[in-house]
Amino acid sequence: MVRPKPDTDLLQFLKHVSLDCVVFGFHDNQLKILLTRIKNTELWALPGGFVRKEESLESAANRVLNERTGLDNIFLKPFNVFGDPGRSEKNPIANEIIISGVNNGLEWFNQRFISVGFYALVDFSKAVPSPDIFSDLCIWKNLNETSSLILDHNKILNSALETLRLQVNYQPLGYNLLPEKFTMPELQNLYETILGKDLDRRNFQRRMLSFKILNKLEERKTGGAHKAPFLYEFNLQNYRQALQNGLYGGW
Amino acid sequence: MVRPKPDTDLLQFLKHVSLDCVVFGFHDNQLKILLTRIKNTELWALPGGFVRKEESLESAANRVLNERTGLDNIFLKPFNVFGDPGRSEKNPIANEIIISGVNNGLEWFNQRFISVGFYALVDFSKAVPSPDIFSDLCIWKNLNETSSLILDHNKILNSALETLRLQVNYQPLGYNLLPEKFTMPELQNLYETILGKDLDRRNFQRRMLSFKILNKLEERKTGGAHKAPFLYEFNLQNYRQALQNGLYGGW
Repeated sequence: MVRPKPDTDLLQFLKHVSLDCVVFGFHDNQLKILLTRIKNTELWALPGGFVRKEESLESAANRVLNERTGLDNIFLKPFNVFGDPGRSEKNPIANEIIISGVNNGLEWFNQRFISVGFYALVDFSKAVPSPDIFSDLCIWKNLNETSSLILDHNKILNSALETLRLQVNYQPLGYNLLPEKFTMPELQNLYETILGKDLDRRNFQRRMLSFKILNKLEERKTGGAHKAPFLYEFNLQNYRQALQNGLYGGW
Repeated sequence: MVRPKPDTDLLQFLKHVSLDCVVFGFHDNQLKILLTRIKNTELWALPGGFVRKEESLESAANRVLNERTGLDNIFLKPFNVFGDPGRSEKNPIANEIIISGVNNGLEWFNQRFISVGFYALVDFSKAVPSPDIFSDLCIWKNLNETSSLILDHNKILNSALETLRLQVNYQPLGYNLLPEKFTMPELQNLYETILGKDLDRRNFQRRMLSFKILNKLEERKTGGAHKAPFLYEFNLQNYRQALQNGLYGGW
């Protein structure tokens, strides 16, 4: 990544508007969240950024996520807006601005920001996380390791999770998160992590198959200790139709 | 409405952030949209506003909608964010600012705004529309009378409609829009307007009743020329549960 000149960087952005990204990945049967660690601290944050004066909001989100993951064409969606008056006070990144000596930065930065939350679903195996200019680390964390993020970032993360929780009741999920071929237990594990509860194995399989969004393959997963489970792939035509009309069909 | 002092008014708001409200009502078997007409023009706009420096985004939306409709506790939700760089150029309200002589207004106003779209569902019969300081009229229009709004307001309106269209596939709709008691044809008409297509009468009734969100009343609608249809009300407990888990139940 080419670092922008720090003394002009912040002034090319809109005031008062930021974006925060909840980036979901799935690996080792765990839902993962991409986090950055702020330089010279032990504080963790959602990857975020600002909107350039000449750029659309979606372009800004794509740019930020490309910088953090190395990926293009990421599946991302705005899911909520966070605008409480006190939400961005005492931002620990302000210290980093002082230390790094960004001119004009602190005044610009110490204002109130209204943040647009985007969630992104990415293929864990293809992402190459890298930190931004305010952080020294950008890594995947398990959901249960995300309990004390800066500012209102836990609220933002919870709101993104809540969005996914509602969506799994009426829309398919998994295409952007799972590898091309996956087992039914892997898919169930993804659902269980998002819902935060255990599901009955047989009911899950029966209901999931009833949506006609899966193709069962002739192959079985290799390498496991137990009896190897069958592999599945998404039936993309039906998957996309179910995204549009809902899992139970439209009117 | 007490008019704020025009020379200080705009400076109490955040720069670069606005909100636009798509207010839906239902009357005479028509889906209605609340619009304002900009003073000294024939131009129509969605009701909108800005965010005070000390106020949350939700409070701002509630304040704006209270000013336009006289209603409190309106059902409203942010549904999308509109952030294209050129979206607020050549805003016809700028002329109104010049004419009204608002000091410091034009410079503030001529910047780029990122607008948060809220949709609201209100009881048509209880709303008392009133214009804001930039408009001379605030009235309900039928959906088919909303084709040439200012700026990107048609895009915002379509995005709100698209949100409702997706939602009727998996969530109940109607509680905030219909009167307490309504007929099945009235409910079907609401759905048909949102979906932009005709639905089969018997299929609609069968499917709608299968969701268990309606109570059939012993009364019939009076005053019609045809055989009077039965009245229904929403079963609020089931309705709210279906809002949460989807019409087909959760996992």
